[in-house]
Amino acid sequence: NSKLKIFTLNSNKKLAEEIAREVGVPLGKSTVTRFSDGEVQINIDESIRGCDVFIVQSTSGPVNEHIMELLIMLDAVKRASARTVSVVLPYYGYARQDRKARAREPITAKLVANLLTTAGATRAIVLDLHAPQIQGFFDIPIDHLVAVPILSDYFLSKNLDPSEVVIVSPDHGGVTRARKMADRLKTPIAIIDKRRPRPNVAEVMNIVGNVEGKTAILIDDIIDTAGTISIAAQALMESGAKEVYACCTHPVLSGPAIERIDNSVIKELVITNSIQLPEEKYSPKIKELSVAKLLGDAIVRVFEEKSVSTLFD
Amino acid sequence: NSKLKIFTLNSNKKLAEEIAREVGVPLGKSTVTRFSDGEVQINIDESIRGCDVFIVQSTSGPVNEHIMELLIMLDAVKRASARTVSVVLPYYGYARQDRKARAREPITAKLVANLLTTAGATRAIVLDLHAPQIQGFFDIPIDHLVAVPILSDYFLSKNLDPSEVVIVSPDHGGVTRARKMADRLKTPIAIIDKRRPRPNVAEVMNIVGNVEGKTAILIDDIIDTAGTISIAAQALMESGAKEVYACCTHPVLSGPAIERIDNSVIKELVITNSIQLPEEKYSPKIKELSVAKLLGDAIVRVFEEKSVSTLFD
Ligand SMILES: Nc1ncnc2c1ncn2[C@@H]1O[C@H](COP(=O)(O)O)[C@@H](O)[C@H]1O
Ligand SMILES: Nc1ncnc2c1ncn2[C@@H]1O[C@H](COP(=O)(O)O)[C@@H](O)[C@H]1O
Repeated sequence: NSKLKIFTLNSNKKLAEEIAREVGVPLGKSTVTRFSDGEVQINIDESIRGCDVFIVQSTSGPVNEHIMELLIMLDAVKRASARTVSVVLPYYGYARQDRKARAREPITAKLVANLLTTAGATRAIVLDLHAPQIQGFFDIPIDHLVAVPILSDYFLSKNLDPSEVVIVSPDHGGVTRARKMADRLKTPIAIIDKRRPRPNVAEVMNIVGNVEGKTAILIDDIIDTAGTISIAAQALMESGAKEVYACCTHPVLSGPAIERIDNSVIKELVITNSIQLPEEKYSPKIKELSVAKLLGDAIVRVFEEKSVSTLFD
Repeated sequence: NSKLKIFTLNSNKKLAEEIAREVGVPLGKSTVTRFSDGEVQINIDESIRGCDVFIVQSTSGPVNEHIMELLIMLDAVKRASARTVSVVLPYYGYARQDRKARAREPITAKLVANLLTTAGATRAIVLDLHAPQIQGFFDIPIDHLVAVPILSDYFLSKNLDPSEVVIVSPDHGGVTRARKMADRLKTPIAIIDKRRPRPNVAEVMNIVGNVEGKTAILIDDIIDTAGTISIAAQALMESGAKEVYACCTHPVLSGPAIERIDNSVIKELVITNSIQLPEEKYSPKIKELSVAKLLGDAIVRVFEEKSVSTLFD
């Protein structure tokens, strides 16, 4: 008769607290700080012997700090005789380094999966991996959750007329995701078809599908520097869209992202709290939705050894 | 007929260049930078197929950045079909977390050894591990070099009268190291015997051994915040030492360290370049010795499949 314990590290404490509330347990007591020289110091302040432990951590920026915190916590939890140790990764960093695009590149997404297993993870719960193939990088059971229902429900609550809405994928890689959202909103899709006509010539943003007079909703998994999404929104307006929303699961929003969003034609950017934004990044255009219930439900179902896929089928 | 290649990352480029010069090969071409969101981006810019690759990296501060750079580089090198991949760690970070001193602590020194192997390291070359037992944390061949001969030779070059010198260990753990140095300088040793008479009472610095009228040389493996070493030097002067030198292999020198050294009675602090100090930490009291020849010789001997222990026996 095991006990469920949820611990957080430093990447996403607010979300972890919300998850613990959803699950109905207090957050596990621990202290994660730094020694004078910057080395991670971890103290777990309650017994976890024989427990099913869930560690909530996004490997968002500062990504290397957050990965090392997670690995060291895994080591501590494993040595403290937990029964199982699941890593709950609302955002899985390094996911874009998932193949050798050029000679002699690392495949860091695979490396990190191996590191987690080496450190002691016995299961992973993840949300919207950049590519679903990354599931196969893990040699432990993995549950892959998706945020499309949460994002879709938000747009459904706006009571838009489906015949006046179009879901837009900003690139070829995201069409399946756009299709899933369009199914929920009962709308058609469009695709931004970026092409470079000749080398050293600017890219052309060609729109496949009808956006004329419509509310366009751009959907992506990650918005990082927001370059693509801002230009895509501009192209949609130039093609006659009435207004443009954008949404994504993971708001990396690095470098010039917020400035670009603020200066863009995007009316509202809908994100989730898979990555905790620093205060100064909450532009008035940003609407944040919570994945706490989704992750909390997944944790409970894993703990009770029930199927997780029903959560979003 | 394999080829020897030496690569560096960002922790210790100057030392890596010196090592490459000692070995007589150019440093391997690679670029180690960051994407906009802080993720490590690595490009290896020359073929290493079938080569014996040596990666020089100290896991000094920022320790988590330097560890992740090393792990990702290992992944890239392994996937680029190197024949062997040796990690050369002039300083091995997290070495003080080498046992559970309290309940539910991680053993990060062991974790990092496992991570290196998982990422692809086939051999390790290290210098003055905080405890020699850490060698056993590696499931790959490891060569453990020591800097005592280099530090000793420097003090020998001062032509001090051995009968007027005493080598001092700042704690019980360092006596073997002090003994090794004393053997080379043909001097006696002394030990700082720290005791706390009762809880919540200041520590007493008791000196075991004769330091009266002598030149005392404090030796340690790591000097971090320099608290212990400054107080020890003070205690030696109060016990009648003529002057106090201090030396160590690894100048972590975090937090108030430089200020403490500057304000202490220590005449000169002798360090090695196992950790690259930022410009502003080169106090006039600091004398830096190079371990490039030692590490270069070890690399050549490993490459030629010769014993490394002869380098310091
Ligand atoms: N953190 C990052 N930021 C920007 N680009 C990245 C990052 N990590 C990997 N990449 C690059 O993004 C490409 C893959 O992105 P994608 O085509 O969207 O799957 C790879 O070729 C990588 O070189
Ligand atoms: N980076 C660090 N800075 C200061 N203390 C540390 C560090 N890492 C580990 N420790 C502590 O140092 C103790 C071991 O140091 P030592 O007795 O010198 O081997 C352990 O009990 C740790 O709690």
